[in-house]
Amino acid sequence: MKFSARNVFRGKVKSLKKGPVNSEVTIEMPGGLEMVATVTTQSAENMGLAEGAETTALIKATQVMLVSE
Amino acid sequence: MKFSARNVFRGKVKSLKKGPVNSEVTIEMPGGLEMVATVTTQSAENMGLAEGAETTALIKATQVMLVSE
Amino acid sequence: MKFSARNVFRGKVKSLKKGPVNSEVTIEMPGGLEMVATVTTQSAENMGLAEGAETTALIKATQVMLVSE
Amino acid sequence: MKFSARNVFRGKVKSLKKGPVNSEVTIEMPGGLEMVATVTTQSAENMGLAEGAETTALIKATQVMLVSE
Amino acid sequence: MKFSARNVFRGKVKSLKKGPVNSEVTIEMPGGLEMVATVTTQSAENMGLAEGAETTALIKATQVMLVSE
Amino acid sequence: MKFSARNVFRGKVKSLKKGPVNSEVTIEMPGGLEMVATVTTQSAENMGLAEGAETTALIKATQVMLVSE
Repeated sequence: MKFSARNVFRGKVKSLKKGPVNSEVTIEMPGGLEMVATVTTQSAENMGLAEGAETTALIKATQVMLVSE
Repeated sequence: MKFSARNVFRGKVKSLKKGPVNSEVTIEMPGGLEMVATVTTQSAENMGLAEGAETTALIKATQVMLVSE
Repeated sequence: MKFSARNVFRGKVKSLKKGPVNSEVTIEMPGGLEMVATVTTQSAENMGLAEGAETTALIKATQVMLVSE
Repeated sequence: MKFSARNVFRGKVKSLKKGPVNSEVTIEMPGGLEMVATVTTQSAENMGLAEGAETTALIKATQVMLVSE
Repeated sequence: MKFSARNVFRGKVKSLKKGPVNSEVTIEMPGGLEMVATVTTQSAENMGLAEGAETTALIKATQVMLVSE
Repeated sequence: MKFSARNVFRGKVKSLKKGPVNSEVTIEMPGGLEMVATVTTQSAENMGLAEGAETTALIKATQVMLVSE
């Protein structure tokens, strides 16, 4: 699989917080960095997301904001 | 400074590719992971972004897409 | 602090509506214009957002859609 | 017309910078605040955007990031 | 009305799932394709969205991610 | 492959317009509907995107804006 997203990070689900419409998923990436994603609860269930499951985070370059001192 | 973005990654500019309207910035994060951001060329210049410069990447949780096998 | 977001608006929190995963924050900007942001409830709490608090809204140029008659 | 975007700002095109794929549009809003949008050059031409033209900026609440001291 | 969004799809509301802050709207487009939008519940109510109502989905070209085998 | 994006449309590349930093890809979907994506030129090349190639467009529900008369 090739993605147009320039940022592709493989990792494992560390935690999952479900709401009525949206759920919050924390992914542990290599080197211990963590990424938080908000996905619809329907998607979380369709994907069978659960603690320990492997998943990949995709982020388009246009979605990344930078801040400098 | 506190950001509403749940994903805040400090790093250094590894490379910068400038276009007429947009520029592509690659940031090296702790553990060697890399993040690519597309920002307007105007912003890159305002921020004085250059190789080796310290910067922080901000990504909202809603901007992160997940994919699982 | 310099942001790659081309749209940076300082203002005050006018109202805050909290949900289980997401919260809705209304910011009053100079000239009386209002901006509504949806942030994760976790972020709203981390930032200590409350009515009257000062905050800055950041919007990337790529996130703005235009419509004309 | 009713939009799902919670942020709807009417204004006038103050400046337009065209690139091969994307263009940068600066809109002057009531109270003198300015909003910058990056749109595809094709869209800018389809919409007949030019200095002085009236247009409306739409921003989804989920696209707004907040930062506080 | 002309939109800077390059993707403009007219359709009808097929279903609407309301949450405390966000709501999930499924739109049936020509040819039977379906589009799912998450909008704030406030917007859904302001727009009077209900099953069978006509609406148009707008998606910026920068928001579309591609994946290829 | 399962995606958290609620909108997953398989199609074929109809046209590709390359710029120095970004490229514009038009995808023909079932029923003749077309979707336009802006991706970085680097991604377009990595994915080997060309006219007639099969690809899938992914759009998060939060990226979809609605407008009603």
